[in-house]
Amino acid sequence: MSEGLAILCGGLGGSRLVDSIAQAAGPERVTAIGNVGDDLELLGLHVSPDLDTVLYTLAGLLDEERGWGVRQETYGALALAERLGGEAWFTLGDRDLGLHLVRTARLRRGEPLSAVTGDLARALGVSVRVLPATDDRLRTFVTTEAGELDFQTWFVRRRHEDAVLGVRYEGAGSARPAPGVLEAIEAAAAVLVAPSNPFVSIGPILAVPGIRGALERHPLVAAVSPLVGGEALRGPLAGMMATLGHEAGAVGVARLYADVADVFVLDAADAALAGEVAALGLRPVVRDTVMVEPQRRREVGRRMLEGVLG
Amino acid sequence: MSEGLAILCGGLGGSRLVDSIAQAAGPERVTAIGNVGDDLELLGLHVSPDLDTVLYTLAGLLDEERGWGVRQETYGALALAERLGGEAWFTLGDRDLGLHLVRTARLRRGEPLSAVTGDLARALGVSVRVLPATDDRLRTFVTTEAGELDFQTWFVRRRHEDAVLGVRYEGAGSARPAPGVLEAIEAAAAVLVAPSNPFVSIGPILAVPGIRGALERHPLVAAVSPLVGGEALRGPLAGMMATLGHEAGAVGVARLYADVADVFVLDAADAALAGEVAALGLRPVVRDTVMVEPQRRREVGRRMLEGVLG
Repeated sequence: MSEGLAILCGGLGGSRLVDSIAQAAGPERVTAIGNVGDDLELLGLHVSPDLDTVLYTLAGLLDEERGWGVRQETYGALALAERLGGEAWFTLGDRDLGLHLVRTARLRRGEPLSAVTGDLARALGVSVRVLPATDDRLRTFVTTEAGELDFQTWFVRRRHEDAVLGVRYEGAGSARPAPGVLEAIEAAAAVLVAPSNPFVSIGPILAVPGIRGALERHPLVAAVSPLVGGEALRGPLAGMMATLGHEAGAVGVARLYADVADVFVLDAADAALAGEVAALGLRPVVRDTVMVEPQRRREVGRRMLEGVLG
Repeated sequence: MSEGLAILCGGLGGSRLVDSIAQAAGPERVTAIGNVGDDLELLGLHVSPDLDTVLYTLAGLLDEERGWGVRQETYGALALAERLGGEAWFTLGDRDLGLHLVRTARLRRGEPLSAVTGDLARALGVSVRVLPATDDRLRTFVTTEAGELDFQTWFVRRRHEDAVLGVRYEGAGSARPAPGVLEAIEAAAAVLVAPSNPFVSIGPILAVPGIRGALERHPLVAAVSPLVGGEALRGPLAGMMATLGHEAGAVGVARLYADVADVFVLDAADAALAGEVAALGLRPVVRDTVMVEPQRRREVGRRMLEGVLG
């Protein structure tokens, strides 16, 4: 049990799996490979919401109640910025801004996002290795009846009310995996795909040339279902499955991952779907996958890992 | 009494004169021409401490007790930034950061500081016209036995403990007055030089080519003494007068302004110095000049203006 574990992850659901596995296996064994497709520039700052959710969760700083941002947060900066004509549709708390300021200043000096993220993790006492999928610019856009929208405009500004008819990863074609990403995947005893949104959280990671191939070559890739009883714990995934033409349920997700995964982790509530998953050529593992409560994560992670590693 | 009044000003002392005159004469008549020599870049943000003190004072947002920053302030951003390795020696409050964020984003888009400052003032409900002396980069450096230091390193980081042996305004030679500065001076019924530090607050303004000449040509320029009973209300001026080789007292300041001013306003505590001021060719006006308490400013401004306008 001393080998590495690599986890592809988005924001909230992803961070909870990373936390669960880190608690179960030891954080030093874990490399989290995070989505940057929903990064944005706001008030001149580079914001990486998914990476930050992972960092805040692991550092014990996340507002767990809300599922984003820093707990015990204040909003003085955004309030005055809004009064002065600054964009304020994306909530940036004051403590949160401290991180964005440090990151943005370093990016502007030419440092890669992966190096900055590594230093932020260390400064926050996070022992999990947190890597962006790429240091290059990659942005997720969704096609809707209102036109193509950048991810955060669709998700936050318009409250993901527009049906998603397509997804595009701008910049993916020329993006390179961040240093350490392919190596972490290749050296891992198992690669986990977190219960994040396959289209807008995991999709942008797999769209970076080289990453999908590394997963296809890996002997043990386990995807954890983000749908439990046909519903996402949070977020618009169930609706997106339908509007994008996929079966809305765990089996539909398993089908999306059939070419990269070897194992598919179903929630105990979906145990009845194990046969359908097996029919896709994936080994089904049925476990409790709900990791909302921090105190349950270690045990959920332990049992999930036991099921995946066999 | 419908003509304009132009005021050259630094931070705290300057902002109080601007507030006093604005309350006495009506804010629409007043143009404040502010110092940018102590501007700095911190955490990737452009901070203009003197302009901000003027804006915050006029908007009723200044922490009057402390003399800088916004009242009812929090410090969440700086605390997390410091934990993440960001520079934190210059205190930036959260609300304050909201302004710096908006300004910096606009400057980075290529807008001039004067346009941004005007918009910030309007957004804060400030009717005084607040202009930076220049839109160009101008930075004050002081020579000390520890070497040449930029203004904020000397003033804040090293707590102005190093004796000042010289002052240099970097960039002044090629700086141009911001749009409206010369026009405001020329059209003013009177130009006031605020009771700010002559070397590091007023000096950088007068160093912008064209501004000193405009004052020399103006028939009524009144400088208000920043020294009362030989001491500054706050700040290192008295010591600087000595180490820079000037007589430490109101008469020493009057001598510094003899070539640009026509009137010199002495505090009532220095009434005995009126003769020495007159001997420099300046018309002495003796008035109460202490404007610390906001509720006294209107009356102090009214009486000062009456003395200056004659």
